[in-house]
Amino acid sequence: MTFELRILGSASATPTLGRHPTAQALTVGGAHYLVDCGEGTQWRLLEYRSRLNQLRAVFISHLHGDHFFGLFGLLGSLHLQGRTRALVIVGPPGLDEVLTTQMRVSGTKLAFAMEFVAVDTEAHAVVYEDVHITVSSLPMRHRVPCTGYLFAEQPRRPRLLKERLPAGLSAAQLGQLAQGHDLPADAGQPGLRHADVSAPAPAPRRYAFCSDTLYTPALAELVRGADVLYHEATFLDNMHARAAQTHHSTARQAAQLAHDAGVGRLLLGHFSSRYKDLEPLLLEARAVFPTAELALEGLMVSV
Amino acid sequence: MTFELRILGSASATPTLGRHPTAQALTVGGAHYLVDCGEGTQWRLLEYRSRLNQLRAVFISHLHGDHFFGLFGLLGSLHLQGRTRALVIVGPPGLDEVLTTQMRVSGTKLAFAMEFVAVDTEAHAVVYEDVHITVSSLPMRHRVPCTGYLFAEQPRRPRLLKERLPAGLSAAQLGQLAQGHDLPADAGQPGLRHADVSAPAPAPRRYAFCSDTLYTPALAELVRGADVLYHEATFLDNMHARAAQTHHSTARQAAQLAHDAGVGRLLLGHFSSRYKDLEPLLLEARAVFPTAELALEGLMVSV
Repeated sequence: MTFELRILGSASATPTLGRHPTAQALTVGGAHYLVDCGEGTQWRLLEYRSRLNQLRAVFISHLHGDHFFGLFGLLGSLHLQGRTRALVIVGPPGLDEVLTTQMRVSGTKLAFAMEFVAVDTEAHAVVYEDVHITVSSLPMRHRVPCTGYLFAEQPRRPRLLKERLPAGLSAAQLGQLAQGHDLPADAGQPGLRHADVSAPAPAPRRYAFCSDTLYTPALAELVRGADVLYHEATFLDNMHARAAQTHHSTARQAAQLAHDAGVGRLLLGHFSSRYKDLEPLLLEARAVFPTAELALEGLMVSV
Repeated sequence: MTFELRILGSASATPTLGRHPTAQALTVGGAHYLVDCGEGTQWRLLEYRSRLNQLRAVFISHLHGDHFFGLFGLLGSLHLQGRTRALVIVGPPGLDEVLTTQMRVSGTKLAFAMEFVAVDTEAHAVVYEDVHITVSSLPMRHRVPCTGYLFAEQPRRPRLLKERLPAGLSAAQLGQLAQGHDLPADAGQPGLRHADVSAPAPAPRRYAFCSDTLYTPALAELVRGADVLYHEATFLDNMHARAAQTHHSTARQAAQLAHDAGVGRLLLGHFSSRYKDLEPLLLEARAVFPTAELALEGLMVSV
């Protein structure tokens, strides 16, 4: 099953030519999700030909503008495109009031429902689930209530091993096995245990999105073994005091967390506009986590 | 004195790659103003190196997203840049509530004051004035309360004609004349009438911004003789029924208004995303107003 991430923006709050504020598109199975939605996100989605009509849910980390100001326009465009299917909007408390006030005052009536899910930003709990994914909150430590998200695909079925299947099974029997059931002994035929003819299901793949946060070592436990970790890296470590003051992380800290959590891949983002050249951030992280990558606009990652 | 207009966006509501929603930067003297502020406007201002710290006032025509969703981010960026000087925000009633709700809920405290001016969108009245310009509202007819704006520079002083000034005038006497006063007869010297030694001041230059509106012939009276008229031209005239239904204008109608009002220049904008090629809109307008122009991104117009 597809489990793909597209980076739409790598910048932090100060607008920078050629960089865009935080937004990521996630595709799992045939469903699309949006993770944060900075100003201009709908143009990025156009640029990468994302199919907006397949959008199921939007996950907002916190109410700083560079993480959600694109949501106003995106909702309007979904309406103009004729959307009628409800859209789930997951985020910190207050997001619903901002959106509904804007619509009330401007006389906007969307043709689709918004289903708000208010996240307790201090808890690690399931906040969304559908047939493709389960999403849990990850408590961030920022200047305003802020949450990360852990996206886990739904458990996959064990795979039947054709070479172990006896000849002569009926379609009904194969169906039973495919659904994970044993075949009982019947009319002199011996039974067949599902476990004997299948390989264990691979562990569900997981993507952890750690938005704006003070370096928080305890997060490692919550994202342990994730296939892909995105972690903000606003500053170089020589600005760690400024990072702590503004509740952000450095590239070295992001890499330390990835190392401690034993994740598969690390993506760095949310770069301060002061860094015209991002190579020093990358090299700093790679000294701790050798395969660290920059989450630059357009990067596509297969989770 | 400088009186320049920079077009930042030419699109209507549906996002289109390579086009941007409505926004225009106006420079009069050393002061900067913004006219509408669609999503992404702050990146356009970066692109054209506009000096945001000189921004005095923002004029919003109506509360459809493609005309003001960029304001949220712009205000945040002004704050990040350290602005402390108050910013005047002129627009339809309700704009203040949208902005203040967003800031309250997100815990944002700007370091500068927002001075809201609520426009009566059915009146033609002065809504803003400073040492450079006087701005009047122009009633538009749209699906929601909507106003255009007429920007007029402050009256200029009559120009002294050096060749008509007698020799031997003192600095004090020249100062009197420069300020428009007559010199009285004094100590056997004859008096000097200001009108005899000056040329009349040129008429104040005017820029009329007609945002989203049903074609409204009565507008011609309000913008008569403007140096530059911007008028929306969302559709070609073969879609005049659709234009009327959505309270928009066609290119032919925009040109008719420019012709009837006897303006100097006509700029067309707010093009429907259905028109990949804008030439037909231009040609249709030029059949009525031969010097019509497309208000494309980046166009700079000296008023």
